[in-house]
Amino acid sequence: MPTMSETDTEAPDQVGVEEILAGLQSRLPERIAALALIAHPGDVEQAFERLDDNEREEILDQIPSEILSGWADYLPAADIEHRLSSLPKPEQREVLDALSDDELVDLLQEVEEADRSKYIQLLPEEKRQVSEDLMQYSENTAGGRMTMAMATLREDITVKQALDELRDISDEAEMLSRIYIIDSERKILGMVRLRDLAFSTWDTPVPDLMETGLISIDALADQEIAANMIARYDLMALPVVDEDKRLLGVITHDDALEILEEESTEDMERISGIGGDRGDQAYLQTTVFSHFKRRFGWVLILAFLALTSGWVLHAYEDVLKTYYILAFYLPMVVAAGGNTGAQSATMIIRAMALGELGTREFGRVIWKEARIGIMLGGLLGIFVALQIKFLLPASLTPENLSLIQIASVVGFALTAQVVTSTVIGAILPILAKKANLDPAVVASPAITTMVDVSGCIIYFSLAQAFFG
Amino acid sequence: MPTMSETDTEAPDQVGVEEILAGLQSRLPERIAALALIAHPGDVEQAFERLDDNEREEILDQIPSEILSGWADYLPAADIEHRLSSLPKPEQREVLDALSDDELVDLLQEVEEADRSKYIQLLPEEKRQVSEDLMQYSENTAGGRMTMAMATLREDITVKQALDELRDISDEAEMLSRIYIIDSERKILGMVRLRDLAFSTWDTPVPDLMETGLISIDALADQEIAANMIARYDLMALPVVDEDKRLLGVITHDDALEILEEESTEDMERISGIGGDRGDQAYLQTTVFSHFKRRFGWVLILAFLALTSGWVLHAYEDVLKTYYILAFYLPMVVAAGGNTGAQSATMIIRAMALGELGTREFGRVIWKEARIGIMLGGLLGIFVALQIKFLLPASLTPENLSLIQIASVVGFALTAQVVTSTVIGAILPILAKKANLDPAVVASPAITTMVDVSGCIIYFSLAQAFFG
Repeated sequence: MPTMSETDTEAPDQVGVEEILAGLQSRLPERIAALALIAHPGDVEQAFERLDDNEREEILDQIPSEILSGWADYLPAADIEHRLSSLPKPEQREVLDALSDDELVDLLQEVEEADRSKYIQLLPEEKRQVSEDLMQYSENTAGGRMTMAMATLREDITVKQALDELRDISDEAEMLSRIYIIDSERKILGMVRLRDLAFSTWDTPVPDLMETGLISIDALADQEIAANMIARYDLMALPVVDEDKRLLGVITHDDALEILEEESTEDMERISGIGGDRGDQAYLQTTVFSHFKRRFGWVLILAFLALTSGWVLHAYEDVLKTYYILAFYLPMVVAAGGNTGAQSATMIIRAMALGELGTREFGRVIWKEARIGIMLGGLLGIFVALQIKFLLPASLTPENLSLIQIASVVGFALTAQVVTSTVIGAILPILAKKANLDPAVVASPAITTMVDVSGCIIYFSLAQAFFG
Repeated sequence: MPTMSETDTEAPDQVGVEEILAGLQSRLPERIAALALIAHPGDVEQAFERLDDNEREEILDQIPSEILSGWADYLPAADIEHRLSSLPKPEQREVLDALSDDELVDLLQEVEEADRSKYIQLLPEEKRQVSEDLMQYSENTAGGRMTMAMATLREDITVKQALDELRDISDEAEMLSRIYIIDSERKILGMVRLRDLAFSTWDTPVPDLMETGLISIDALADQEIAANMIARYDLMALPVVDEDKRLLGVITHDDALEILEEESTEDMERISGIGGDRGDQAYLQTTVFSHFKRRFGWVLILAFLALTSGWVLHAYEDVLKTYYILAFYLPMVVAAGGNTGAQSATMIIRAMALGELGTREFGRVIWKEARIGIMLGGLLGIFVALQIKFLLPASLTPENLSLIQIASVVGFALTAQVVTSTVIGAILPILAKKANLDPAVVASPAITTMVDVSGCIIYFSLAQAFFG
């Protein structure tokens, strides 16, 4: 992240998010109409994200359908849906018609059964067909994210014929830079670039310009796999095919960006012990109760897990009461474990998400983390032992123990705790991956809680052994 | 993240990462040559990421320059650099020439002064000029990430003339779908799409097809701002300009993907208390010592911060010794604060990174988190109070306190601790942002450590007040 606010930076000639926000909040029809002419819908979306629920709905209710149509591809489906419900049929049709394939399908998948068929009835025949086809695929699959508005051509034509055909469809096609060549069964034979068509002589046969061996993805595959392929292979678009390898649609580079942002957000949230799905609702658009529901699960589970540490403290009551100085260093030993465990878990989870680690590397990862843990724990243990030996305030120095005894126990416990935690932090996401779970489900709060227990046990059993 | 491993999925006709890895590790020249013909360089990069340092260098030393040239745009600069140093000059030239502008500049910025001028001497005149221009910009700016290989045209021409000019440069241009129209000072007048040129009559004047009012970015702006603009406006490419608005280059959609992945990784790492920069080294390519250096800073600082909690425990020695049951619930109170604080910090940090929150919204965010905290803390307090009242094991029940007393203290302390922590978790990233720092520097381990202290104080002072 840059150190300055990226949302405060706009192209010089453009109206900024803050200004759009003020315009929307003014609720003045003429100001909103003026905004629609100059603001980029991407900025309008960001302005809407900063509004509270009620405010947003009130403002939406004032947006005329012709303006909404211009913004529709950028606003969240829930907002469009809210506004649609209060519009007369012809205006509903206008807005629905303005939506691109994939946004339309998102909307249709979100509305209630009754509204869905009502809206589908309003669509022109071709669009109806496309959305019914696309709705078969669930939202998080490649099929659910694709658009069908790509350009296709048959193989047995010349450049001249190709350009003539493309000219006819150029208004509807979302992407024309890549044109897919298909056979009579819609199986992909290859791809030509518009630039090659534009710069070749008219009588060149299209197959002469065709790149073959295209990468494609199954419509049922997870959308994140598609986005990762687009990133790894620097693609402008990834063809989506059915089980018989027939071309169904494409996922474009801008979808890949959106998917990877969503997935990064999801991973971060999971790592921090937030459950459930964020959907396309921004932070302020999510109700307090929805936030609560996503967070309470882990909080409750972990609170009861923390009772295990309580048991350990209870079991060592005599040791703690006799050598009360141990209480002074207990939070440090416990916290160092939580911190190092969270660090290694994050490292591994992210490396796996970026495809840097396969199942073959797991042994090496654990060995690497063990060595890192030994360095971290060893050095930390030495620092703290020295602090005890030379800097322990007189008021804390107990009568029944020597400084060397305390320094040894705390130093060794810290080292042991950090090594254990670092390795646990690496092993848990790896086990999750082996079990075909998302490695990020091993939230670091869970790791922290687990290593809190191990830290207490290590600490008190070392103390008992050393102090007799 | 999907539940299956994305790295195990490849296009059906393609050689997979595992297979490439095995091929590279075989070190057989003929197997590597065969790989070069069929493997996608994006997959080769992933295979290299899974190799250890020594193994990787040994294998690189065996890759002939003609194969390296095909992979060069995908492999990390450090790997190319390693191999270059042992190649004779003509082969160095071959590899350098194969690199695209931006990758070449990355490489030149990374090598030592002496090598840099040696390599620059090897470049053809035009490429030398381009790389010297690009090297003025630091790595993390828009200028540092742009390519200069975009297509530009003057305004006063027809479609026919435009196509003729573009045909000549079509081999070098990285992107031809968007063509920028510039004046005699290289200021941007607008943009035409290749599709519009291809489908218009030859005598159409180019200005008739031109879109004006283009969004652009200053070359010195942070690369993340550029990537966010590409994402927000669904751009294929973003023009980069100097202070006089002269067109310097473009950042393309695939760069935006890369930047946003890097920035998400950086945020996740910072949130988990990992310092420094990851660079383009994969997890396994980073030495144990480099990992150690990035992690030790926070671990050490937090360990000494945790002594504050130790002081609190020490200050309340009498209370704890008299009512030892408090030790049983102490880890729970402390952990619940850490977990909820980390949750709210992550939510806010991510929402700010996605541009969902501006400075105007901060009051609302804190109020929202306060309400979420009250719900989380209230319900958790009730659950735990009930657990104490009805399920506390007889062995733990103290003689000097009633169950109601314990349940009240633990329940109230939990609620107070969770509310405090949730609000602290929201306030700290907001303060960082107000101070123009990256909100993610407020790593959640730091928040956890801070709220550990507040938790201990709340807990013991409540206990003292209630138990007399």
